[in-house]
Amino acid sequence: MEEQERARRPGGRSARVRAAVHQAVTELVGERGYGNFTIGDIAARAGVADTSLYRRWGNLQALLSDVLLARLNKQSPMPDTGSLAGDLRTYAAAVAREVTGPDGLALVRLAVALSGEGRQGLQARDALLADRRRQLQAMLDRARDRGEEPPDALEVLDHVLAPIYMRVLFDAGPLTPEYLDGLVDRL
Amino acid sequence: MEEQERARRPGGRSARVRAAVHQAVTELVGERGYGNFTIGDIAARAGVADTSLYRRWGNLQALLSDVLLARLNKQSPMPDTGSLAGDLRTYAAAVAREVTGPDGLALVRLAVALSGEGRQGLQARDALLADRRRQLQAMLDRARDRGEEPPDALEVLDHVLAPIYMRVLFDAGPLTPEYLDGLVDRL
Repeated sequence: MEEQERARRPGGRSARVRAAVHQAVTELVGERGYGNFTIGDIAARAGVADTSLYRRWGNLQALLSDVLLARLNKQSPMPDTGSLAGDLRTYAAAVAREVTGPDGLALVRLAVALSGEGRQGLQARDALLADRRRQLQAMLDRARDRGEEPPDALEVLDHVLAPIYMRVLFDAGPLTPEYLDGLVDRL
Repeated sequence: MEEQERARRPGGRSARVRAAVHQAVTELVGERGYGNFTIGDIAARAGVADTSLYRRWGNLQALLSDVLLARLNKQSPMPDTGSLAGDLRTYAAAVAREVTGPDGLALVRLAVALSGEGRQGLQARDALLADRRRQLQAMLDRARDRGEEPPDALEVLDHVLAPIYMRVLFDAGPLTPEYLDGLVDRL
């Protein structure tokens, strides 16, 4: 991932720092879990001064939120298949793949952690979610422009994303392709 | 709460210890959050030997799960209103009240924390959820016995509980009485 980012933006020191920091956070989350490392730990691992991390991200919460957003956008970008049903099914499948993967509940874990960390935490959480929601809304707007009748973004959260997350969080039931398509069809 | 429990089971040392331990956990969760205290901390606060906590609960995860289950059963017992719609609406309202309360996301926080703590954590989580699910199933079975056609317990999780939890976790939308009733009606 880091190498790809370097290749894409050759020579950009800023991009290199970002890639190194993201890599460091990913490793620290895997090794220690959210909430168990500091900006100083990230800086040391990434080989940069912690002052430059504070300058760029402001605080740990904003930095974590930035890393997770970049990962989500890379791993489950909003699809554009040409039909609403196709988009929603593809999206549901990507989310299911992500939440059942090795660091699957990262978004829920981070949202839980940030929710308990005062105003900076809540702001970072909201920035992360607002960005994803804008993308989802754009997908739904494209459907409306094609003459389809899309649901609200909030309905997609309530009846597609929420069941997927809860099933994984509570180990409550399988996420088969049929089940996932059924969530979309039911919507 | 502690006083009530004492009054109900006068002279029971075991019940007194349990009440003191539950109170200590509730305080420590409020002050430090899940994951930031040990069995030793609980024992010290409750004024009992930590060996007796290990003897009774086995490990920290099982103890936390026991405390949260007792709280859930007290604060949102499964209702028995005489109709499925009444039961589900009452239950949804109780869950919404709970998750928007002072320690609202306790169940999600604990499920997240336990999920990351190996086999003992997963066992504790599953025991907690299995108990609540049994109660929910009993509520649905009563409806069937009355000749109603209840949904699966998993559908209640997917389309009533999951949206409530996600809206609170992501601060995504309000939990009005109309919205909550709508979730039940839609089911």
